[in-house]
Amino acid sequence: MATGLFISFEGIDGSGKSTQARLLADRLRGLGHETVLTREPGGSPGAEEIRQLLLTGDTARWSAETELLLFTAARRDHLERTIRPALDHGQTVITDRFADSTRVYQGATRGDLRATVDRLHDLMIGTEPDLTFLIDMDPATALARGLARGSGEDRFEDMGLGFQNTLRAGFLGLAKDAPRRFQVIDGNRTPESVAAEIADIALPRLGLVP
Amino acid sequence: MATGLFISFEGIDGSGKSTQARLLADRLRGLGHETVLTREPGGSPGAEEIRQLLLTGDTARWSAETELLLFTAARRDHLERTIRPALDHGQTVITDRFADSTRVYQGATRGDLRATVDRLHDLMIGTEPDLTFLIDMDPATALARGLARGSGEDRFEDMGLGFQNTLRAGFLGLAKDAPRRFQVIDGNRTPESVAAEIADIALPRLGLVP
Repeated sequence: MATGLFISFEGIDGSGKSTQARLLADRLRGLGHETVLTREPGGSPGAEEIRQLLLTGDTARWSAETELLLFTAARRDHLERTIRPALDHGQTVITDRFADSTRVYQGATRGDLRATVDRLHDLMIGTEPDLTFLIDMDPATALARGLARGSGEDRFEDMGLGFQNTLRAGFLGLAKDAPRRFQVIDGNRTPESVAAEIADIALPRLGLVP
Repeated sequence: MATGLFISFEGIDGSGKSTQARLLADRLRGLGHETVLTREPGGSPGAEEIRQLLLTGDTARWSAETELLLFTAARRDHLERTIRPALDHGQTVITDRFADSTRVYQGATRGDLRATVDRLHDLMIGTEPDLTFLIDMDPATALARGLARGSGEDRFEDMGLGFQNTLRAGFLGLAKDAPRRFQVIDGNRTPESVAAEIADIALPRLGLVP
């Protein structure tokens, strides 16, 4: 059996990437295609335990370096327990965030950590998605959406519009460096039209007709 | 103010290293020398939270690689929050286990991980103790002691005498590779005579008279 396709969704918070990940999973399942929808941090029982350490309590209790190690531990577990087994069974895996989020969020917070992020990824993860949809979005709109949702989990939302602009530039920079893997999607439209564009790209990669 | 001395105690479980770490700390404090006694995994509030993930529940839920990342996250926190601040204030730090335990336990469990352990240490920790006391001990005696104590935390005790012999050989190999840092102490004696030998070595390093 052929290995499944590994798809990630990335973007700043409020960009609609979680909605789009779900819409694509629904579409594939509707076509009878076995699909695992997952997310980071978390996505496996062990990684969810680590997620609790990262996102609850005083999140400032971790230094950037310790946080990076915890994110990587969670990602390793997610990869071993959820992503790889599904791909090995020929299923498609769609994840809401993967290593690009660490590159951008940790890199934007602490620029001197960027090289460490890459070395740690190479040493302990080593896997990239086959296809990454970057939902690109006006940061002011995305920020308003994220704050309105008030998930309480994303402390980066508290850091304001300038920071969101930095994150957006970080994601666009990654897309420019890996144009074969990334598809940059204009998120400033209705969810339905964004989803239609994504399906037009993803379905042929799976041998399905859009 | 001069930086304090960083001392670690290593050895197989049941070797008496925890007792010896405490006896040296007591001795130094009795001489009016500011001393921090700590241990791994744990040793800082964040690292203790990670310790709970590592040592409670079904410990087999983590792969060797994820476990290594969690140990390293805990060590980074321990170093930043407990060890470095104390050393910077000129205090002596005595830790019951540090990176050598990871080298031996993870290396003995999964030989192919040894190079990864070293690379991860260089990338995210980078610090070695100034002085390491390896309490060397007959594994059969150490194993009987460890089982009698029944801490329930050390699953390696369940792996039997052959495994304890492998761990002992691993520690002795590290000591041979870093003879200036390691002091190998014969632990097959009364705790008092072991403690006396350790004090004879440690006190002059601190400008104290044994």
